[in-house]
Amino acid sequence: MNYAIIFGGNSYEHEISIVSAVVLKKILKEVIFIFCDSERNFYLIPSEKMNSKTFCKALYKKEKQIFLKNAGFYQKNLFNEKKIEFDCAINLIHGKDGEDGKIAALFDFYKINYIGARLEASVLSYNKELTKLYAQKVGVKTLPYFMIKKYDNQKQDIEFPVILKPARLGSSIGISVAKNEKEFEYAKDVAFEFDDEILVESFKNNIKEYNLAGCMIDDEFIFSIIEEPNKQEYLDFKQKYLSFSSHTTIKEAPLEEKLKEKLKENFKKIYNPLFKGALIRCDFFIINDEVYLNEINPNPGSLANYLFSNFTEVLQKLAQNCKNEKSLQIEYKFLNSINGQKGKL
Amino acid sequence: MNYAIIFGGNSYEHEISIVSAVVLKKILKEVIFIFCDSERNFYLIPSEKMNSKTFCKALYKKEKQIFLKNAGFYQKNLFNEKKIEFDCAINLIHGKDGEDGKIAALFDFYKINYIGARLEASVLSYNKELTKLYAQKVGVKTLPYFMIKKYDNQKQDIEFPVILKPARLGSSIGISVAKNEKEFEYAKDVAFEFDDEILVESFKNNIKEYNLAGCMIDDEFIFSIIEEPNKQEYLDFKQKYLSFSSHTTIKEAPLEEKLKEKLKENFKKIYNPLFKGALIRCDFFIINDEVYLNEINPNPGSLANYLFSNFTEVLQKLAQNCKNEKSLQIEYKFLNSINGQKGKL
Repeated sequence: MNYAIIFGGNSYEHEISIVSAVVLKKILKEVIFIFCDSERNFYLIPSEKMNSKTFCKALYKKEKQIFLKNAGFYQKNLFNEKKIEFDCAINLIHGKDGEDGKIAALFDFYKINYIGARLEASVLSYNKELTKLYAQKVGVKTLPYFMIKKYDNQKQDIEFPVILKPARLGSSIGISVAKNEKEFEYAKDVAFEFDDEILVESFKNNIKEYNLAGCMIDDEFIFSIIEEPNKQEYLDFKQKYLSFSSHTTIKEAPLEEKLKEKLKENFKKIYNPLFKGALIRCDFFIINDEVYLNEINPNPGSLANYLFSNFTEVLQKLAQNCKNEKSLQIEYKFLNSINGQKGKL
Repeated sequence: MNYAIIFGGNSYEHEISIVSAVVLKKILKEVIFIFCDSERNFYLIPSEKMNSKTFCKALYKKEKQIFLKNAGFYQKNLFNEKKIEFDCAINLIHGKDGEDGKIAALFDFYKINYIGARLEASVLSYNKELTKLYAQKVGVKTLPYFMIKKYDNQKQDIEFPVILKPARLGSSIGISVAKNEKEFEYAKDVAFEFDDEILVESFKNNIKEYNLAGCMIDDEFIFSIIEEPNKQEYLDFKQKYLSFSSHTTIKEAPLEEKLKEKLKENFKKIYNPLFKGALIRCDFFIINDEVYLNEINPNPGSLANYLFSNFTEVLQKLAQNCKNEKSLQIEYKFLNSINGQKGKL
């Protein structure tokens, strides 16, 4: 199986996507790297140049620029175009472009075979409020919340502490905890830098968080181990990077079998059928033995490879199982029926 | 203002999109036509060839093929590439590709200025169940419903008559009314041809339906007249075509001022801010003086031009007011900080 990893993107998580791709370089054998720069130009990056310098010194601009067209990426030569060969793309752009549905739309439109959340799944997981509405619809609990909008000055009665999250960002960017009114005002300003809508939840410092990754192949679910992430108040950008690039072995969270099953049942409700084709990570809370969805990561850091003992095997099965969107035959019945009729078109 | 109308697409409404474009040819002056064929190849169609024959006889394949790239559509010549010049694109693909978010994603990604619903708005209006969840969230009533899924054989207690709608199709394709169990089974088979999920609502034959189109420019709403569509049980494909291409003047529905205001208030809740950049049509029911949203048409037939007395003026203002998605600056702070550190990337 030849993979093409698509990474970068015009995203606040552009850099973490580069790190994600470099981590997978060490794990996957037959893989090519397609970098989407912040201007949305695509470059083919040789494996040996997959390092931080290539990107932060803009050396990638010396590499071959390629173009997305119908049925593939193409490289322009003097007299012809060469198709870039691979079996399955992996959408590894985090946040905007990658997780908001743009890459899914491009790949569906141009009939590229890919691992990743489809358009509707992307939009529902990218917007944290829509994630809550979706979870409710499929019978998964989430924490109570309210929204604040940028130009809406309605005063809210707030029970502190609360956590403020920009509605549409991945990672932990723009997220703050506020313990009082003053911190709340500051946290609002921070979050409004990133989105016009902020989701506010009650913040519980000692809440138990568990991460579970998985995917569905045919009608079978494959799950990762359940991780209890090592966190302070909440995970920041650097911590997240360190966690998914670390070589230390992750230990399964010491949870009762019954609770593990509950987490998996909730994962299944979220995943099936919306996320078919993707390997996702769901982050859950457990409060009084009840499971609550915190968020869905349709493109988790390095595809959460560190949570699987048989990652390459899972990925290969998933790649073989990915289905492109059904293409319709257009027969022009209606236009044929009116073609030639007077006064019609 | 030079427009580029994008029409066609791999959609069950491919042909109705061609009709939509032909209708606008007669109304807009400075406009070029970009046809997306069922394979998703783009062609530049000269205005004089905008007729049914060009498409149903596949003559469009003789026209110039163009390609979507960063910041525009391009035509390949022997030694160079020529950019196709226009100020603002109009997304006029109906149904799949156009209204499901793909075109929005492509145009956002490649920074094309366009009139049309954005990605999130497209996904929420394309899926009829998500439309209901969204309407509920913004405080707009919809009719009660239940969903049936293709491989789920749960028996439902049904009070007939009901109307069955494929969850994700525009137009009236695949929609049937069932008056009894036998008709229901047949209607299910029809709708499952188009989607794996069907939305079922109680059907009221004498329900009053009203269509209202509009858009927001700066902070002001511009509304069309309110139309009471001429329908039998419900509008079929051919009727819809005839209605938006007809030259007969549409008369404003004879509604009390209070109800008209109510329709507009509900439109505003649906539109703002999700549909900014688009001219949409909302189809409402009125039952006992209460307004219910039936559906949102983000790309109504020929942009519902026939409902506006000053259509070209509205369109021009909207085009001038369209904003592209904000582009982010990537500064490589994190990669710079670790570049050169031992053991890191």
